[in-house]
Amino acid sequence: MFLDTRKYGTTWRDIYKLAISFVQPRPIALVSTLSADVVRNLAPFSLYNMVSANPPVVMFAPSLRRDGSGKDSLHNIEAVGEFVVATVTESLAAAMNQCSFDHPPDVDEFAVSGLTPVPARFVRPALVGESPVNMECNLVEIKRFGKQPGAGSVIFGQVVAIHVDDRVLARDGAVDPARLKAIGRMGRSTYCRTGDTFEMPRPKS
Amino acid sequence: MFLDTRKYGTTWRDIYKLAISFVQPRPIALVSTLSADVVRNLAPFSLYNMVSANPPVVMFAPSLRRDGSGKDSLHNIEAVGEFVVATVTESLAAAMNQCSFDHPPDVDEFAVSGLTPVPARFVRPALVGESPVNMECNLVEIKRFGKQPGAGSVIFGQVVAIHVDDRVLARDGAVDPARLKAIGRMGRSTYCRTGDTFEMPRPKS
Repeated sequence: MFLDTRKYGTTWRDIYKLAISFVQPRPIALVSTLSADVVRNLAPFSLYNMVSANPPVVMFAPSLRRDGSGKDSLHNIEAVGEFVVATVTESLAAAMNQCSFDHPPDVDEFAVSGLTPVPARFVRPALVGESPVNMECNLVEIKRFGKQPGAGSVIFGQVVAIHVDDRVLARDGAVDPARLKAIGRMGRSTYCRTGDTFEMPRPKS
Repeated sequence: MFLDTRKYGTTWRDIYKLAISFVQPRPIALVSTLSADVVRNLAPFSLYNMVSANPPVVMFAPSLRRDGSGKDSLHNIEAVGEFVVATVTESLAAAMNQCSFDHPPDVDEFAVSGLTPVPARFVRPALVGESPVNMECNLVEIKRFGKQPGAGSVIFGQVVAIHVDDRVLARDGAVDPARLKAIGRMGRSTYCRTGDTFEMPRPKS
């Protein structure tokens, strides 16, 4: 199959559906924000990754809705300038999914999902108590790809603090993936577990 | 464990090692570029994702080396303004790994890895013949987080064409993950397969 994305008649929703079916497995950020009215918000995003180590920067990219409006997470970060990224594990899957529904802005997804808000050290949005890893982030910049439906808004956040539950740590101070049990996002309604791994050291020449 | 990333004595390499151990599973872009001297380059990056559907935009983020220099992929995209992203599957793992070594700029990683360069439709860098999915991209912008070692350079590319091997397509026109067999990047030298999946439809309320 060959798809010319700029060809007349190709819709952005077709492109989106195709692209998320092979840009995978995607890590999942459960993003905690606070609105200007101090309502907590929690929503999962899989257009997410780390983008810089020095300074440490992560990004996630909510798309504008079909009516061109922005999601609550975007508005909250614009208003408050801070967010928390919690890591999604197998045991958090169902609660994370509850947060994926597009609730009205006055709904607290911590309450909806049963997850526990825990005060962060440097930022106002809450950590997710049940997640073994939380990152506290300060907004650096939002890069927008337009105002049309489907346009991405790339939110860059500098990581100012990292909280890790000691139970998922390996001896070398990094996280042991076998203890973390992170899940990844595939296409459609599909998620993957990360227990089926293999080792492949970098070649030396 | 609590890590204040701005605290004196915390090194960016410690932060990097920790962060890539839980921002996972990460999708892998095998990025094909061409130098100003028309030497082909192929290198894998897992700080990679889609960031916008309309326009379709992907990003990947090579970090500056420990001596502050940029990787060949970055220089080539600065010079030529185009790149191809190939999808990495189980059967491509070993060849991809051959491309991960930091070869001199005059080395053609297609030759080193045995992968087959195939002409693209709209851009000069080659498709990876053995990969079931290739995206042709035009450079949109490079967002830099400084010139120091470890600083990320986020390369945004507009996807102008998508090639998909029909054998990995599902009936609905998207890619079937069970046929694709994409692999993901974990921490250290660990990769994950994506065959262990579960379904979780979005809640309706």
